Order: sequence, then C-alpha cells, then structure tokens
Amino acid sequence: MSQPLIPPHGRHVDLREYDPAFTGHVSKEQARERLPALRARLNELQDTLYADRRFAVLVVLQGIDTAGKDGTIKSVFQDVGPLGCSVANFGVPTDVELAHDFLWRYHRDTPEKGKFVVFNRSHYEAVLVERVKGLVPETTWRARYDQINAFERFLAGENVVIMKFFLHISRDEQRERLQERVDNPKKHWKFRHGDLEERRNWDQYQLAFADMLSHCNPAHAPWHVVPADHKWYRDAVIAQALVDRLEALGLRYPGPFEHLAGIRVE
Amino acid sequence: MSQPLIPPHGRHVDLREYDPAFTGHVSKEQARERLPALRARLNELQDTLYADRRFAVLVVLQGIDTAGKDGTIKSVFQDVGPLGCSVANFGVPTDVELAHDFLWRYHRDTPEKGKFVVFNRSHYEAVLVERVKGLVPETTWRARYDQINAFERFLAGENVVIMKFFLHISRDEQRERLQERVDNPKKHWKFRHGDLEERRNWDQYQLAFADMLSHCNPAHAPWHVVPADHKWYRDAVIAQALVDRLEALGLRYPGPFEHLAGIRVE
Repeated sequence: MSQPLIPPHGRHVDLREYDPAFTGHVSKEQARERLPALRARLNELQDTLYADRRFAVLVVLQGIDTAGKDGTIKSVFQDVGPLGCSVANFGVPTDVELAHDFLWRYHRDTPEKGKFVVFNRSHYEAVLVERVKGLVPETTWRARYDQINAFERFLAGENVVIMKFFLHISRDEQRERLQERVDNPKKHWKFRHGDLEERRNWDQYQLAFADMLSHCNPAHAPWHVVPADHKWYRDAVIAQALVDRLEALGLRYPGPFEHLAGIRVE
Repeated sequence: MSQPLIPPHGRHVDLREYDPAFTGHVSKEQARERLPALRARLNELQDTLYADRRFAVLVVLQGIDTAGKDGTIKSVFQDVGPLGCSVANFGVPTDVELAHDFLWRYHRDTPEKGKFVVFNRSHYEAVLVERVKGLVPETTWRARYDQINAFERFLAGENVVIMKFFLHISRDEQRERLQERVDNPKKHWKFRHGDLEERRNWDQYQLAFADMLSHCNPAHAPWHVVPADHKWYRDAVIAQALVDRLEALGLRYPGPFEHLAGIRVE
C-alpha cells in the first residue's frame, strides 16, 4: 500500500483516500533513529540559508484541533532553534486585523531572507473556520482560493520557499487526544468546552480541508498530506520533506571577499 | 578564587575584577554533562510558564562583537525551541524607529505572558554603541540609565521576569574569534571591516559596559557578568541561572475545572 505525500497538482482531493495512520515502509524504530540526523541537517541548512541570504522559508501548518501542530514544531525545529526560526500563531483576529483585508496579518509575519517562519495556523483559516462557522458568505470564501493562490505566487516569486503541511488525523485519534486532556491533570488547562462543539463539525472540516488541498496546491507551494496519527511518522516525514526541498535550492556560503586575504587581527 | 555572577547591587563595577576565563570549580566535562539536564528543565519550566500564564520572561543578552550571543541562544534554548521562545534582534534603527523615543522598539518586542523573549542586543545599546560612537550627547545617554531603570521597574511590576546577561570576553579571545572569521571560509560572510574599527574602541566599550552594570542592576532585573571565554562555562552558567530564577516563581499548571469531571469525548 502507498499513498502520495503531495496530492497530484490541480486534481480534486478526497481525504478518505488518505490513511491518517499510514506509515509507509518505515518502522517506528527506523523513524526515531533517523530523526536526529534530519534535525541536525535542517539546522545546517538554516545556517547556510542565513549566510546565503537569497531565500526565506515559510512553513505552513494546518490541522484540526489536537492534530499536533505544536508537537511538530517542538520536534522538527528543535535543532534549528529560536535563533533561526520563529513561530507565528494566529488566533481570533483583533479589531485592527479585522479592519484590514484577510491576508494583511499573515503578510506582516512572513519571513525575511535567511529566516524560517512557521505559521501555526495560517491564512487558510479564512477558508476553514470562517467557512465552517459561517462567518463569511460562500461567495467570499470561494473567492479566497484564488486570492490565496495569487498571494503565494507573489511570495514564491520573491524567493519565499513555501512548504505547507496538513496534519491528517483520524476521528478516533482526536477522541483519544481530547479525552487525554480531560483525564490528565497536566493537560486540563488545554481543554475548552468549545473543543467538543468543534468536534461535532468534523465532517464539515474534512470537506473544507479537502477543498483547500484541491484548490491551492501549485508546485511552487505544495500541500503535503501528512499522516499524523503516529507522531514519530509525522515528524520524520515533515523533516525529510523540508531537508529535500532546501537541499535542492543550492544554498551556499557567500564566497571570500578578495580584500580579506592576509588580514591579521591585532 | 571566586567572583560573583551578579555584581553587588548599587555598587560600582570594575570589569578588571571579573576574569572572562573564570570557570569556578567546574570542569569542562562536568559542565557539558550538566547542560542537557538544564536545557530539558528549562523546557519544562517554559511549558509550565505557558500553562500558568501569569509571567513573561525577558532575557537580555549584551556583549561586544563575537562575545557569543548567537551561540548562547542556540545552546541554552535548544530544548525550549521556537514554539516557546522568540528572539528579537536589534540592528541599526530604521527611520520609523528613530522617529520614536529610544525605548519604543524594545517595548514593542517584550514578551506576552507565558512566553520567553530573548533580546539579542537590547535597549542597552542606547548607552553602549550610541555613547561610544558619540551618536548622542553625554547628557542624553547619562539620563538613560534612570529611564531604563524606570522602564524595567514597570515591566517587572507587570510580571515580566527580567534576566540580563553580559557576556564578558577578553581582548585576546576576541582577536582569536575575529581571526577565525578571516581564516575560515565558512565564516567569511560574517566578517565586516567595521569589526576591526569597533575593536579599536575596546577600552571605551569596557567603560560603557561597566557603567551599564553599575547603574542598572536592581534585584528585580539583575545583571549577570558571565565569564564567556569558555563557551561551555558560559552556557551552563546562563542555563542554571534561568532555571534557578524560574523555579523560584512557583509556576504551576492551572487546577482542574470542576466541570471537567466525568466528561467522555464521543
């Protein structure tokens, strides 16, 4: 059995064809063994990206509640660390943010050259929660796919490397993770009654995710459908995808300045 | 031999009394062995800080060029990671920043409750580079010690935990680190001819550092004079100081909500 990590570009995605518990031919032990080397390589690549200063990297994480966005950041970017990577969290928009177009606050937080930024939730909220909760009419959210595609095309043209990861978990897995928040005193603070309400919208969210994956998946800003029921597989897959993409950029340390030769620091 | 990590509050600091190569009674092996546990503990404390949501943590790093600010961040905050910690770098002020008071851009980047922010250079630049390069008259930078103290007193009163670390290196150590940038092709991009010019101002910087340490060292926002010639000692000392301070805060996971009892997630 196999399933693509990146859905075929420009084709409709049916999420029922993607198994959230998929682990390819990789065992847990293999994935756990490989992860430290991938983290270290990602860190080296970020160092080079910073010195090179031609590209910026934007990592987009989306997924339903408990899909593991925070855990992914903790694990994959451990070696990169806060010096080379910052995280932009997007919650309920403020009044000032609502007074602007929907892309405004996201554009503001895009990475500068040499840096990684992780969007922990992203501009895709505008076609997810806003659609499911009916915050905007259908004509509005439908128009946003094109607006988002144009925005990402612009960024990509400006040397922003865009990597999007949809963390795909099963309904059962979410139940277990929510129940854990109820049962584990250390996680009580994470639990909101609203989470149960959102869970009732499960099917609508799956539809909204599928449409997002179908309409906004160009080669320059691909969606990865990451099987995320198994955290060890999720982390290894994402780290590997980032390493592969960055290695293909041909990053390099800027060459020696001619006038450096023979300098002795006194 | 011993030397205080935190200079006595309200007393004049003479940096010649602080050995940049000091390592206490700790061997390199001991420090290296202890660091992973300190990093992990710092990460746990950050998790609790986030759940607790009463305090924010502001870490201030200052030091002359090559003192090791970046290296410190990479090492000490490796386990905390980008999710719990962000880094604010302050370069040459922009026009917009210059059109505001000197504390404006620093205030903007202070941490929210539950988060760590590291100031990689900080508001102290206003009494360091601006003094040494004569960018503002003496009456201006002298007045800033009180302004900075008032600013930090205000933040501390708002539950911002302020920890300031001065990375103290020797003139010889700086020479070696600058020379390394000349000699190592991977570091050429870091070298600026301006660095050599700044090195000529060594003594004036030491004076400016000493005055900063003397005038702005209250118990609620202490300066730590970190012997930083040895990176392994520097990292262990800073990690330990942060762990000690955070453990003293009595951080806790918010208690269970009464109405959580018995919930079964369907």
